[in-house]
Amino acid sequence: MIVILKQNPNRAQLENLIDWLQSKGIQIHTSVGLTHTILGLVGDTSQLDIDLISALDIVEGVRRIQEPYKNANRKFHPNDTVIEVGNTRIGGGELTVMAGPCSVETEEQVVTVAKAVKASGATLLRGGAFKPRTSPYSFQGLGADGLKLLSLAKKETGLPIVSEVMDVSQLPLFDDVDVIQVGARNMQNFNLLKELGSQKKPVMIKRGLSSTYEELLMSAEYVMSEGNENVILCERGIRTFETYTRNILDLASVPILHQLSHLPVIVDPSHATGKSGLVPPMALAAIAAGADGLLIEVHNDPACALCDGPQSLKPEAFDKLAKKMFALHDFLKDAED
Amino acid sequence: MIVILKQNPNRAQLENLIDWLQSKGIQIHTSVGLTHTILGLVGDTSQLDIDLISALDIVEGVRRIQEPYKNANRKFHPNDTVIEVGNTRIGGGELTVMAGPCSVETEEQVVTVAKAVKASGATLLRGGAFKPRTSPYSFQGLGADGLKLLSLAKKETGLPIVSEVMDVSQLPLFDDVDVIQVGARNMQNFNLLKELGSQKKPVMIKRGLSSTYEELLMSAEYVMSEGNENVILCERGIRTFETYTRNILDLASVPILHQLSHLPVIVDPSHATGKSGLVPPMALAAIAAGADGLLIEVHNDPACALCDGPQSLKPEAFDKLAKKMFALHDFLKDAED
Amino acid sequence: MIVILKQNPNRAQLENLIDWLQSKGIQIHTSVGLTHTILGLVGDTSQLDIDLISALDIVEGVRRIQEPYKNANRKFHPNDTVIEVGNTRIGGGELTVMAGPCSVETEEQVVTVAKAVKASGATLLRGGAFKPRTSPYSFQGLGADGLKLLSLAKKETGLPIVSEVMDVSQLPLFDDVDVIQVGARNMQNFNLLKELGSQKKPVMIKRGLSSTYEELLMSAEYVMSEGNENVILCERGIRTFETYTRNILDLASVPILHQLSHLPVIVDPSHATGKSGLVPPMALAAIAAGADGLLIEVHNDPACALCDGPQSLKPEAFDKLAKKMFALHDFLKDAED
Amino acid sequence: MIVILKQNPNRAQLENLIDWLQSKGIQIHTSVGLTHTILGLVGDTSQLDIDLISALDIVEGVRRIQEPYKNANRKFHPNDTVIEVGNTRIGGGELTVMAGPCSVETEEQVVTVAKAVKASGATLLRGGAFKPRTSPYSFQGLGADGLKLLSLAKKETGLPIVSEVMDVSQLPLFDDVDVIQVGARNMQNFNLLKELGSQKKPVMIKRGLSSTYEELLMSAEYVMSEGNENVILCERGIRTFETYTRNILDLASVPILHQLSHLPVIVDPSHATGKSGLVPPMALAAIAAGADGLLIEVHNDPACALCDGPQSLKPEAFDKLAKKMFALHDFLKDAED
Repeated sequence: MIVILKQNPNRAQLENLIDWLQSKGIQIHTSVGLTHTILGLVGDTSQLDIDLISALDIVEGVRRIQEPYKNANRKFHPNDTVIEVGNTRIGGGELTVMAGPCSVETEEQVVTVAKAVKASGATLLRGGAFKPRTSPYSFQGLGADGLKLLSLAKKETGLPIVSEVMDVSQLPLFDDVDVIQVGARNMQNFNLLKELGSQKKPVMIKRGLSSTYEELLMSAEYVMSEGNENVILCERGIRTFETYTRNILDLASVPILHQLSHLPVIVDPSHATGKSGLVPPMALAAIAAGADGLLIEVHNDPACALCDGPQSLKPEAFDKLAKKMFALHDFLKDAED
Repeated sequence: MIVILKQNPNRAQLENLIDWLQSKGIQIHTSVGLTHTILGLVGDTSQLDIDLISALDIVEGVRRIQEPYKNANRKFHPNDTVIEVGNTRIGGGELTVMAGPCSVETEEQVVTVAKAVKASGATLLRGGAFKPRTSPYSFQGLGADGLKLLSLAKKETGLPIVSEVMDVSQLPLFDDVDVIQVGARNMQNFNLLKELGSQKKPVMIKRGLSSTYEELLMSAEYVMSEGNENVILCERGIRTFETYTRNILDLASVPILHQLSHLPVIVDPSHATGKSGLVPPMALAAIAAGADGLLIEVHNDPACALCDGPQSLKPEAFDKLAKKMFALHDFLKDAED
Repeated sequence: MIVILKQNPNRAQLENLIDWLQSKGIQIHTSVGLTHTILGLVGDTSQLDIDLISALDIVEGVRRIQEPYKNANRKFHPNDTVIEVGNTRIGGGELTVMAGPCSVETEEQVVTVAKAVKASGATLLRGGAFKPRTSPYSFQGLGADGLKLLSLAKKETGLPIVSEVMDVSQLPLFDDVDVIQVGARNMQNFNLLKELGSQKKPVMIKRGLSSTYEELLMSAEYVMSEGNENVILCERGIRTFETYTRNILDLASVPILHQLSHLPVIVDPSHATGKSGLVPPMALAAIAAGADGLLIEVHNDPACALCDGPQSLKPEAFDKLAKKMFALHDFLKDAED
Repeated sequence: MIVILKQNPNRAQLENLIDWLQSKGIQIHTSVGLTHTILGLVGDTSQLDIDLISALDIVEGVRRIQEPYKNANRKFHPNDTVIEVGNTRIGGGELTVMAGPCSVETEEQVVTVAKAVKASGATLLRGGAFKPRTSPYSFQGLGADGLKLLSLAKKETGLPIVSEVMDVSQLPLFDDVDVIQVGARNMQNFNLLKELGSQKKPVMIKRGLSSTYEELLMSAEYVMSEGNENVILCERGIRTFETYTRNILDLASVPILHQLSHLPVIVDPSHATGKSGLVPPMALAAIAAGADGLLIEVHNDPACALCDGPQSLKPEAFDKLAKKMFALHDFLKDAED
């Protein structure tokens, strides 16, 4: 960590700072420049509170050299984390496809879709029971009943389930869920993250709409620092000035997160773009960028006029895409050798 | 609401849509253009699920004309909402100053600051007991003990308290808190918002880092639709590409939110800028823009080398600013007459 | 185009507006809602000035249904534009690789790199002679001399040249340049765009750092409306809150621009990410997303300690990547069949 | 400047770097940490090319301590720059009001508005002759004829003129213009900036839609480094995710630019918000934030149905606002004493 001092800092305050840092086991290298003096802090700075130091009257700025996350950091854990869920492995060169409806609505719907996506090669069933909606007047999901329908589909198909939790109080309902998803709007719901850290199920954290890579990794760190190492990162688009699509899918996040961390990285092209026509090219691009898997919405209810989510593929389109995805993954693996 | 159809829409699907809309009591005006057909929906469209309609195969786009919020909407509630807390009134032309330390640390600290800000004219005491921190390794606040220290300061000074809740489970501890704050990271924690809607204390909702005005008002709507009309909006800066300050304070939000809604609007220049030197000009600018009040961090602990938050004013600086703020508010009121 | 009127519009002004629109050959469909009246404008609205109409006292908002660009619009020109440059074709299913140094520095450098990238399969040589730099104190490029060095490399290798023009006054120097590049910072330099529209060489327009798809297509329209149909679009990343990489590469732009327009779309992963390690995964992802080509920086000067651009690949790394890119392009073409 | 080296840097390359830096007169302080070695560069680093150094294989990152601008830097020029134009002074505690129509259309229009704004206290007449428009089909301004109409209004009223130049080739037409404006889209048109630096008229540079403070100051530096010290900075809003207003006016830019630089800062609330109803509160807020002046659109043509720009005030509304602005400025000046 580098601390840049203001010009002519108060001596007493500077000594206070240096004493305090040394009491934390930090060594200090001082470098006197023409206009500024710089302190180079050497030691385990990941546990220093950068805001506290920035706050000092004598400090102009503080810059981290070392990353503030440890458990999630590739430097301290060079090998890929591989998470086993049912018969499937997430991370470490596998391609995991999680697919299913955005919202769980009926038994027929979820079982039909589950069977279809399994037949196409998906290894996890995704489905929303608790739905975070901007408007209190929009459908909020079936809740506990939705989770029961997912369980039925799991029993029918053997597919493990991934579903979103919105609040600590809902956790007891997630017994039969295999991967617990934290939504983008809850990425910095720190109480929820801590709670998920003190149980053992894998946790998939979606990147917040305006969250940096470091903030995403710090949210993973919240879970991991409580003892749960099974964290999956999920890129689902960020908010920018462009309004043509719902969000901008940031595929560079895939190689970057792989470089910074050992955790698997899943890409959700359905929510990022909000348009089903963009899901296939973005899914393939995600694989080419090195993603460990995809989270894709698939929906099918021909009897209902108002069901096709604008971002959902129908099973036939998903099947076509899945074939391409697995073939592309194999092609790229071979090209690597 | 306007529904723009794709070229040559499937007739059966179109009839399904029209039947469904009419079953909701919506009238439909059809306008056939050269390249597109447009449906104008007339009636109470605020409860239609825009995503559901956008999702249809035959629909190219949907645009709202009417705002999706009702309880928070100025159109249905032309007069300013005025919220009474203790002896102070928030909204309706008053200038409310909420001040205090970012984090509550010791009794001496919070009582000293409370007395100082009261003497300078503040009418509410702000103080953080539960602190949302990006890092699990940063100080997370004193929690329940922090709330007790705030109560002591309230007893000493008579100032009502505003403090942040991070999770539904913490609510029972907030008995002595007068205004419950929802932080920017929790602005779309919908379970928390609903819970706050079913109790009676005023709720101050901070705008999320990348939240639109409409999303902020929809979060207010979550609280109001459960029965609690006492909602205060708080502008605290948005995230952009500029990294010189922590966030960009969007002061146009003040007249815009006043135009769209009847709820009071408070501005937090301390968190928005993250630099104490910018608090005075931005506080004065907020008043000139028409803000109903300010939320300002004030901190004082001369014995401790590591306490001055970079965004906190010392009591003397706050006192000087408070004098200017009240004088400016009086000046602008007179100029209005 | 839809014009949403304010409540109770002034009748005389409304009649003025209607007369004026009808004088432009526009038909008007009126739809009266509960709270608003809406005018549906039918006819060629692409030449109506949306700002002028929005400006009227009686208008609450205006929304386009039809795109404001015509020459660049896929709807009026369903087939892909294919641009021939030397022996190479850009667009229409080909994979075009443009490669070379960021800045042209010496004859040896540019000729060596040109030979290397040609051997690896590149079909155009990129090289900067005029360099837009944020600081007046940074190296501004060799200018006219740089263009001469590019000509030498072209003579040696037969590769056509793509190079950036910064100002109308430089155009006479671009005689031997085959594709004229407009940089991101000049994307809305409308005088330059018009001038490039009145000559015949292909023009490659880079998307501005905070430009929408529509703005990029409107800039293409500036060139095309003056008579030059040979326009290439280039995605090179947009500016967001994330600072880990220089910009965020928006790969969804590829299928979106292909859907909106018939013009070829090139992706520049070097400038978008600013980090050479991210160029290979992003180049492959761009191809999977359907890009018509790549613009890649390649640099080689082992004698100089200060030359490797952080975003430049060395020829060997580029060669390895090029092999993968062409193989991937072939694989995806086969998968399409 | 701080250079952070990668772990185990190549020794020969490191020596090359150190030799090269020393040859530029830079002293180097080395600080060896647990995971990284840091070089502290001492001396005049403002002329070092940060990109060149970042580019080295052995470098992980480079961070500036010293600002990269010198002429525009408050540190090297502590006193406010005051620019005299006609009888008016811009900067140094004065409040300058520049007002007039967005586009110059007719002699009657511009002369009428000029007289009106002069009567209200404006000291410069703004008016657009060359208009940067997103669409080639929108009105592009009257050009040279527009400048002639501005000259007539100047002759009638004595008000100096501020008008936008879009291209170097237009400069000869600006003889009678007193302050040359560079638009947001041209903020990094470096050829134009250099040209404006080699003439003597004051130049007002508008901040680009996604430009940082530092980039704005670097653009000022382009002009100043060529010899023209008369530069005015103009905040006109930045582009974010919020679409309710055209842009977000960043009023913290006023105290920040004043702190970083000695140049005057003008605020344009008309273009930033795009809505006339927001101009008065934002103009007052800008003054409270410490702005040296305002740029405000005023328009008046009762005969024409299609003229009121959505962001333009009518003369009566402007007059009311101007009275408040001058009174507020006086009030704040007194409060300062």
